[in-house]
Amino acid sequence: MAVNPDLARERKQATFDVEKLTEFIYNGGNIVRRRRYLQNIIFNDKYLSSFKPWAYRTREEEYEIGLAKNVYLNKLMNDLNITNAYEQFFIREAAVSQESNPLGLHVVMFIPTIEKQGTKEQVNKWIPLAKSYKIIGTYAQTELGHGTFLRGLETTATFDPATDEFVINCPTLTSMKYWPGALGKTCNAAVTMAQLHINGKNYGMHAFMTPLRDFETHQPLPGIVIGDIGPKFGYGGNDNGFLLFKNYRIPRDHMLMRYAKVERDGTYTSPPSAKLAYAPMIHVRSLIVGDAARCLAQAAVIATRYSAVRRQSEMKPGEGESQVIDYQTQQEKLFPQIANSYALLFVSRYMLDTYLNITQQIEQGKTDELPQLHAIASGMKAVSSWLASEGVDNLRMACGGHGYSHASGIPKIFINLTPACTYEGENTVMVLQSARYLVKCVSMLQRGETLPGFMTYLSKARGSKSPLDDRLQFSDLVDAYEQRAARMVKSSAMRLQSLIASGKSPEVSWNMTSVQLTKAAMAHVEAFIVKTFVEVVSTIADKNVRAAMESLCRLYAVHGMNKKMGDFLKDSYISGAQADMLMNKMLDLFQEIRPNAVALVDAYDYHDNTLQSCIGRYDGKVYEALYEYSKNSPLNEKEVLDSYYKLLRPVMKGEYSIPPVAKL
Amino acid sequence: MAVNPDLARERKQATFDVEKLTEFIYNGGNIVRRRRYLQNIIFNDKYLSSFKPWAYRTREEEYEIGLAKNVYLNKLMNDLNITNAYEQFFIREAAVSQESNPLGLHVVMFIPTIEKQGTKEQVNKWIPLAKSYKIIGTYAQTELGHGTFLRGLETTATFDPATDEFVINCPTLTSMKYWPGALGKTCNAAVTMAQLHINGKNYGMHAFMTPLRDFETHQPLPGIVIGDIGPKFGYGGNDNGFLLFKNYRIPRDHMLMRYAKVERDGTYTSPPSAKLAYAPMIHVRSLIVGDAARCLAQAAVIATRYSAVRRQSEMKPGEGESQVIDYQTQQEKLFPQIANSYALLFVSRYMLDTYLNITQQIEQGKTDELPQLHAIASGMKAVSSWLASEGVDNLRMACGGHGYSHASGIPKIFINLTPACTYEGENTVMVLQSARYLVKCVSMLQRGETLPGFMTYLSKARGSKSPLDDRLQFSDLVDAYEQRAARMVKSSAMRLQSLIASGKSPEVSWNMTSVQLTKAAMAHVEAFIVKTFVEVVSTIADKNVRAAMESLCRLYAVHGMNKKMGDFLKDSYISGAQADMLMNKMLDLFQEIRPNAVALVDAYDYHDNTLQSCIGRYDGKVYEALYEYSKNSPLNEKEVLDSYYKLLRPVMKGEYSIPPVAKL
Repeated sequence: MAVNPDLARERKQATFDVEKLTEFIYNGGNIVRRRRYLQNIIFNDKYLSSFKPWAYRTREEEYEIGLAKNVYLNKLMNDLNITNAYEQFFIREAAVSQESNPLGLHVVMFIPTIEKQGTKEQVNKWIPLAKSYKIIGTYAQTELGHGTFLRGLETTATFDPATDEFVINCPTLTSMKYWPGALGKTCNAAVTMAQLHINGKNYGMHAFMTPLRDFETHQPLPGIVIGDIGPKFGYGGNDNGFLLFKNYRIPRDHMLMRYAKVERDGTYTSPPSAKLAYAPMIHVRSLIVGDAARCLAQAAVIATRYSAVRRQSEMKPGEGESQVIDYQTQQEKLFPQIANSYALLFVSRYMLDTYLNITQQIEQGKTDELPQLHAIASGMKAVSSWLASEGVDNLRMACGGHGYSHASGIPKIFINLTPACTYEGENTVMVLQSARYLVKCVSMLQRGETLPGFMTYLSKARGSKSPLDDRLQFSDLVDAYEQRAARMVKSSAMRLQSLIASGKSPEVSWNMTSVQLTKAAMAHVEAFIVKTFVEVVSTIADKNVRAAMESLCRLYAVHGMNKKMGDFLKDSYISGAQADMLMNKMLDLFQEIRPNAVALVDAYDYHDNTLQSCIGRYDGKVYEALYEYSKNSPLNEKEVLDSYYKLLRPVMKGEYSIPPVAKL
Repeated sequence: MAVNPDLARERKQATFDVEKLTEFIYNGGNIVRRRRYLQNIIFNDKYLSSFKPWAYRTREEEYEIGLAKNVYLNKLMNDLNITNAYEQFFIREAAVSQESNPLGLHVVMFIPTIEKQGTKEQVNKWIPLAKSYKIIGTYAQTELGHGTFLRGLETTATFDPATDEFVINCPTLTSMKYWPGALGKTCNAAVTMAQLHINGKNYGMHAFMTPLRDFETHQPLPGIVIGDIGPKFGYGGNDNGFLLFKNYRIPRDHMLMRYAKVERDGTYTSPPSAKLAYAPMIHVRSLIVGDAARCLAQAAVIATRYSAVRRQSEMKPGEGESQVIDYQTQQEKLFPQIANSYALLFVSRYMLDTYLNITQQIEQGKTDELPQLHAIASGMKAVSSWLASEGVDNLRMACGGHGYSHASGIPKIFINLTPACTYEGENTVMVLQSARYLVKCVSMLQRGETLPGFMTYLSKARGSKSPLDDRLQFSDLVDAYEQRAARMVKSSAMRLQSLIASGKSPEVSWNMTSVQLTKAAMAHVEAFIVKTFVEVVSTIADKNVRAAMESLCRLYAVHGMNKKMGDFLKDSYISGAQADMLMNKMLDLFQEIRPNAVALVDAYDYHDNTLQSCIGRYDGKVYEALYEYSKNSPLNEKEVLDSYYKLLRPVMKGEYSIPPVAKL
């Protein structure tokens, strides 16, 4: 393959073996090879490559193609007997990267909820139907007027002892189910969350299996009003839906009754303590961190390769235009994002590993680590999705005009990623969940109790000045982050306490401290990221790979400090002179990372078919690809458009007159 | 009109008369009334309201509707004899808010360029044809491989003395014209920028009037390859185009020769000094600042009203869910953006006024103020488009899930605004243009010369500690911003000088300082904004309006300091105690602004038809509008989609088999 000479030179000058970093990223050479093997099956698949490119689709086509591809993939994976979650992920990454899957929530939410919350009878009845797609379901929780605050949901399920049924209703407009994925057109059922009412008493949120469309005709059932919620920023392939229940009846045995129960006579049995509910949330949030990392990584691959190929302005007169990656300001746009993507990747891996460990401990009855991990998971979910969303958009802008074209592939990543800031818990609410745990830790400290694991940094004794110098020792960097977090956590917790002590209610006091608590919790999460990044890098066996990643890890820490330097300077733990040193060291690190930039993003091993980017191609044939993309624009199917004859020509001839009403 | 009771209460509690602020925003009651009169004509126009909503359009429809609306508007404004630029703007704001106009560049770039750079004969020949739309043109400068660096453009215009013609060529793939608006399908001509070659010598960039399509058939002329560049993040209504010239010939008199000239024998006359070229750039960049302000204002209207209507979680148990605008963290998302929108609005107005003043001075031969204003205009273009782009996206996220739906109207604002970070000069390049002037000012200071106007802050004598206290006096706030800018400008200029003194070339030294220069230039621009905001607010006659705007102006300054507190703390001009005070004062300002939040955005006087937002409606009927939007989704035209029969039903019946190739 002929490669753009600039890119070829970039790859030659790398100081480490890219393949070794790839193996570290994917946890071993075997997985790397298996991933390539599986993805190649997809890339060579005639059916999957016969669809028109994403950017050229109408919204209706986007939905239908999404369905067609995913129906096909399900069959393919079934035929090939691919059941491992990672392997399924690799296949999806190759086939439908950054495209939404109308059958996704069926697998990720509908089936697992029934499996976990259904009785044996319910599982035996519905799961085989669901697994063979006779029933296709989603998870209907969010309502038009209600999101993250679950207790505010209004949909009711009222037990009717006369008929042994639940009557489900949306008593208000705001109680309409709204947003659930694939609810609009795809699904014929849902797990619906509703307030359980028995004999006039509200027993709170419970899960109900609700058929929605006739399993034979796919028409909505009586009492069901349902549809697509309409065009969104992205997610065109997903028919997020609305759903109104109007005196809709289901048999009593459609309530998921593994834990909570309603007897024939209306007797209610409440579920055992829901403390273990933390665990699945930790899992989902860790997965979101990984998604954020991969989205940012893909955008970084595109922007970095493009910046090596793109030339602009003469840095030295007469020497021709420079690669834009040689401009310090461009390095500031690219390299910290590469560092962020690795940081998030390593943290998500650490969280998943810890989650697996903890799941084992939980089964042995140990739940000590749960709250700490839950606090980190909530905060990381928010920090990672914000960081990646902002990072992807900045990388788009770092690609100049071409970044704005769908040909770059970056807008598609952005609109697919950015909902992660809202779903599975709105980010600010997530950060405040984290803060709530931190405030508890401060109280524990005040009571002289010992803090668990990572939290011990809150009580660590320190001098009044950071020992950080231009060697940028990892221990000093971690210490600076921990010192800052500890100070911010304690001062906001103390402000909260003093407001309460002054007579304000805990809720009002909490609200009056919430901006500072948010900043403190984010500082906590950022300290955790730096610490984890440092730890993971130290485990890299290959010395050249480790050296390259150490530079990146330092950049992550230093860039983050420069960005929020006020926090570090405020109590003079970091001095003005150290701040100046950190700015200079950041610029030095750019130079250190410069020769490895392309190799660092190559190591992610994203195939061109996954990136779907004209400007991020492995071979650097950016301009050829852009021209090809343009020639194929649907607007170019006709040389002269109908609108010319309808509109422009009459204007040019002075014969334009206004049609009474528009036809479009 | 029945209004949501929360919104009605918000409006009652405002401490000032909204109409008075509206009059201040639009420069007087007469203009406000005229604006409403004109916009009402549009809102009641049957033809314009007969098109399907923007969110439901395919890209092809978006283009055609854009054309249809703008053809109609041109006729309407002609019939009504509306020639004033502001009035035309009000009409467009009402009719095609945030939608692109395929005939826009014809008016804004093609006609003015011929008028300014053409000879009398050329103007007399082409302008009447252009004004009657016999010729529809654009401005073809940017190339596939070349953007902001004009000298790098590759398209050539070679004089052929044998035929008295120019032969225009794109000698490489990268020299293909790419991105010019409306070039793809709409235009039949362009002003093309190309390197002028005569007798083997390159005379640099010149402008040529190039017909592109047959004026009768609209087919591309021989030697012209042209088309739409394909789908983008937004701008669907604009057929940004590509254009290849292949030995395309135009007569010699098609070069715009008012200044530079080529005689029959090839003799070249160069244009007089291009110093005055600054002036139109200042104008265009000031207009971009105004655009950014209005986009941010519209998003702020939407998010603020929605936050007053939306309720979530119980702040006090048992008291029902709270308006989300009462959460401190939500206030932090909204109020600084309201402040930013006013800041940008006032600065853009100040810049336009100054520009008009200066234009008069220039005609009297005085150009002293030009470089200073040019530096501010370049920097402001960048800072304003970044600030607004980021702000609009943050306001989108502040609206939770609904912000992500096109029903909110915010994604449309974002994708229409964000290209401003790139067009008319890539933002980082713009900031560095500003920095170049600042470095010159430092040299002037070192030589003991006097600095012009606003720049004198660089040499102002100051103590080592800011007198800022919790009264937040404007003079102290401005001083803090100026002190910070002065320090950063001087230290980066001195780093640059010392690198050059150490033997590095000026270009390499510049690059090695560019990150710091960028930050310094942005600090300069931010000081200018604060100063201008303070000055404009002080001119408000009405005492209640002025008081409300003073709070907002303080918030702008304090929020900006908190965001970049490291800059202020680094040399201890601001102390840690002052930093703490500024955080607390920011929270106090939130409470001060809280009762006025809705009134402050109402004052922008954006009609619902302009906002096109279900969640930003004046009457607060958010949920009714969202449901209506959803019901009308094109995906809901059929209750059961064709894709059900094609794909889902076979899967459900276990009869799915893969078609050999996709049909989409």
